[in-house]
Amino acid sequence: MGLLSKDIKTMNDLFLHTLQDIYYAENRIVKSLPDMIENASNAQLKQGLKSHLGETENHVKRLEQVFQMLGQSAKSVNCPAIDGIIEEAEEVSGEVEDKDVLDAAIIAAGQAVEHYEITRYGSLIAWAKRLGRNDVAKVLEQTLNEEKAADKKLTSIAESQVNLKAVS
Amino acid sequence: MGLLSKDIKTMNDLFLHTLQDIYYAENRIVKSLPDMIENASNAQLKQGLKSHLGETENHVKRLEQVFQMLGQSAKSVNCPAIDGIIEEAEEVSGEVEDKDVLDAAIIAAGQAVEHYEITRYGSLIAWAKRLGRNDVAKVLEQTLNEEKAADKKLTSIAESQVNLKAVS
Repeated sequence: MGLLSKDIKTMNDLFLHTLQDIYYAENRIVKSLPDMIENASNAQLKQGLKSHLGETENHVKRLEQVFQMLGQSAKSVNCPAIDGIIEEAEEVSGEVEDKDVLDAAIIAAGQAVEHYEITRYGSLIAWAKRLGRNDVAKVLEQTLNEEKAADKKLTSIAESQVNLKAVS
Repeated sequence: MGLLSKDIKTMNDLFLHTLQDIYYAENRIVKSLPDMIENASNAQLKQGLKSHLGETENHVKRLEQVFQMLGQSAKSVNCPAIDGIIEEAEEVSGEVEDKDVLDAAIIAAGQAVEHYEITRYGSLIAWAKRLGRNDVAKVLEQTLNEEKAADKKLTSIAESQVNLKAVS
């Protein structure tokens, strides 16, 4: 995580730190999705990523709402995890030649991003409930459900179209 | 991913590259788990991580078996994703003061690692099947099931013990 780590003394601190971590991650994803959309060839994949970009912009807003509910200003900490996941995704996107194989690689990269978010929101929701903030948990659950749906959608595009073309 | 990315022309290449990526990741996890075990306080968490270290050593061997099935020598490529995830985990592990809060942070870090592996093995299994290598898919599925079980075990330890103590 980031520079603030030494300040983590209570579960409230850990919660806030992780919120700042996923706030950084969501903003990073908003910046990286347009390249993935441009590199994708399959129409359904392109469309799915576009619609997830809209959702992700909304996840950023939802996090800002949570910061507000906690009486905090929205703030990021560095998140080496999402940096690494996206670095890996961009390397592959720029280097695979065949467009169907590239689609398969983009889907795998997108799913790595989704799984990172799923695990972070999962922790945040469990902690929010334990801290007596069911209101916050409820807001975060909306995002978690959308991340899970995005992951399933990518699996379905891979299984029904992309992987089939990519091996042909 | 790594230096070999320019060689990714077919789904076979993408499969092999991702296998080398997760081979790097599993070896990196074997090296980082002992520190997590040492930093953990909760007895059930310590024991769970220890038993997952044994499983992870076995996942490395299973990957070597897959390389052999494909007539390839076992080899790693750099994996910035797992490097970032573990960097983030180590930063937190070293910086949280309260031992119960640290346990909660270790669980969240462990689940981020599990989710990375779950997504990579998920892609590899789908691709192996599509490439007509159900035998390879079957070997990788054993590991995927163990990663999913490890993730669930961490959730259960968090919910039943750690998060409760950490907010008290």
